[in-house]
Amino acid sequence: MAVLQGVIPVAPTVFRDDESLDIEGQRRVADFLVDAGSAAVCILANYSEQFSLDDAERKQVVAATVAQVDGRVPVMVTTSHYSARIAAQRSRAAQDAGAEIVMLMPPFFGATMAAGEQAVVYYFATVADSIDIDIMVQDAPLSTTRLSTALIARLAREIPQVRYAKIEVPRAAQKLRDLAALSGDDLPGLFDGEESVTLIPDLWAGAIGTMCSAMVPDILGGVVSDYLAGDRDGAELRWESVLPLIHYENRQCGLRAAKIALAAGKVIASDRSRAPFDDVSRDTRTELLRLLRRADPLVLNWN
Amino acid sequence: MAVLQGVIPVAPTVFRDDESLDIEGQRRVADFLVDAGSAAVCILANYSEQFSLDDAERKQVVAATVAQVDGRVPVMVTTSHYSARIAAQRSRAAQDAGAEIVMLMPPFFGATMAAGEQAVVYYFATVADSIDIDIMVQDAPLSTTRLSTALIARLAREIPQVRYAKIEVPRAAQKLRDLAALSGDDLPGLFDGEESVTLIPDLWAGAIGTMCSAMVPDILGGVVSDYLAGDRDGAELRWESVLPLIHYENRQCGLRAAKIALAAGKVIASDRSRAPFDDVSRDTRTELLRLLRRADPLVLNWN
Repeated sequence: MAVLQGVIPVAPTVFRDDESLDIEGQRRVADFLVDAGSAAVCILANYSEQFSLDDAERKQVVAATVAQVDGRVPVMVTTSHYSARIAAQRSRAAQDAGAEIVMLMPPFFGATMAAGEQAVVYYFATVADSIDIDIMVQDAPLSTTRLSTALIARLAREIPQVRYAKIEVPRAAQKLRDLAALSGDDLPGLFDGEESVTLIPDLWAGAIGTMCSAMVPDILGGVVSDYLAGDRDGAELRWESVLPLIHYENRQCGLRAAKIALAAGKVIASDRSRAPFDDVSRDTRTELLRLLRRADPLVLNWN
Repeated sequence: MAVLQGVIPVAPTVFRDDESLDIEGQRRVADFLVDAGSAAVCILANYSEQFSLDDAERKQVVAATVAQVDGRVPVMVTTSHYSARIAAQRSRAAQDAGAEIVMLMPPFFGATMAAGEQAVVYYFATVADSIDIDIMVQDAPLSTTRLSTALIARLAREIPQVRYAKIEVPRAAQKLRDLAALSGDDLPGLFDGEESVTLIPDLWAGAIGTMCSAMVPDILGGVVSDYLAGDRDGAELRWESVLPLIHYENRQCGLRAAKIALAAGKVIASDRSRAPFDDVSRDTRTELLRLLRRADPLVLNWN
């Protein structure tokens, strides 16, 4: 597969008000994200509340999304699990269901359980051995197992399927720059994440894409494509125009923001997240929607 | 149900050398733990590598253990999950399968995701609403969601099924003492954990039981029963005689120690843990077994 570039938004897992899966809403989110110009659609990521699903629900989300996207763009499935064996099984199941790329964090559990470098290499090698598709390594502060630049470069060097890395840690741009220099063609797919709040510095550093939420992927995808087409100033201005919005998402709302936007645009019926997530307050919601309307994004006009 | 007291060891999840489930070994561990004088048998805890199992495997371990124990003692199932909804479903499934008590940590995920006090109360209340059996709250440093003494007391006061707490944090004895004073009859089941490395101070503070590993439950159960029968000096001497062993387990081996002991005693065929756990080195293993033989525990004589 050619290297993906552009925007790969994270689809939330859609729930009804009673917290049960809303598969019809899941399919509408998939359609919306394809229409938004996504290079691929990512499911079961942390912004999809993957930590709040059981195994059967995971399978339902994969099946519904792959069927609905129907080959228009690749589907990326997050398959992280503490156990290398189960991460490999999940990745194989994703490939068998039609996914074209998997994304994994390194193994970690809770506040205290982290894996050593050799164990991280074993983990990704075990996953790679079970599949034929590409792997994106996710480097996020949520993991107690921290990935050094050298370790990510080693994964890309030793495991050919590791062709992507999503860097969403403090000083992401420098890490991307270092990876570009260290890994070169071993790791062509450098992405950032974290709601795209560092996108322009990350593009300067060599990123070729971003993994934002499902809130304004049309706009953030436009920033990447303008930038990669050579319109650096235009891309920068466009990104700066939505920075207050995505910064508000990142710092004040978290994963609830995309659901609030999707519900406001009637893409989904309920913005419910599973407990123990707290509800977003009325004031926070009001401010978010004000910033969102100002951006005039597809999510408010798609329905 | 009368309040459990004594030793409730954690059964490891037994794997073959290829990391697949060894249900026959799981059944033998259950028999061994009943024969060791356990007040109940706990499965799917962190020392059972619950974080390395998928949902189908969880069900297999529950079914095999309940069937093998066959009512001789209660079975306790750990049902923690980030989602309150899924924790409740897991707890209901455990009760339906024959468990007589469930244990849960509060919700947490990774290094950064913790839940607030109201969300913790909602979580345990949601679990309680789904079952009729008792709940043990697990208070361990692995969780990024920390449980204050006041919050544990609140859970016990507001949720009648919360009758047990397992305290395995630094200064466990003081926390147990404070809980005994604050909660009284609301929380009769005060236990410690952490391989029983603080057992005697915890008994002084009001604990009525301990949750150790499956390595020397016969000895640690004897410490508790001697103590509760009034033989405080005898209990203390007995505990001090195995402290070097359980301290070595706690600090040098982790959950691998019980498997090494069970395999040395031919209770199970393989001491394999699932990757990314590293193997225990030959030297560490040798020292552990030397300390273990000195204790002359049931695990080496049961087969």
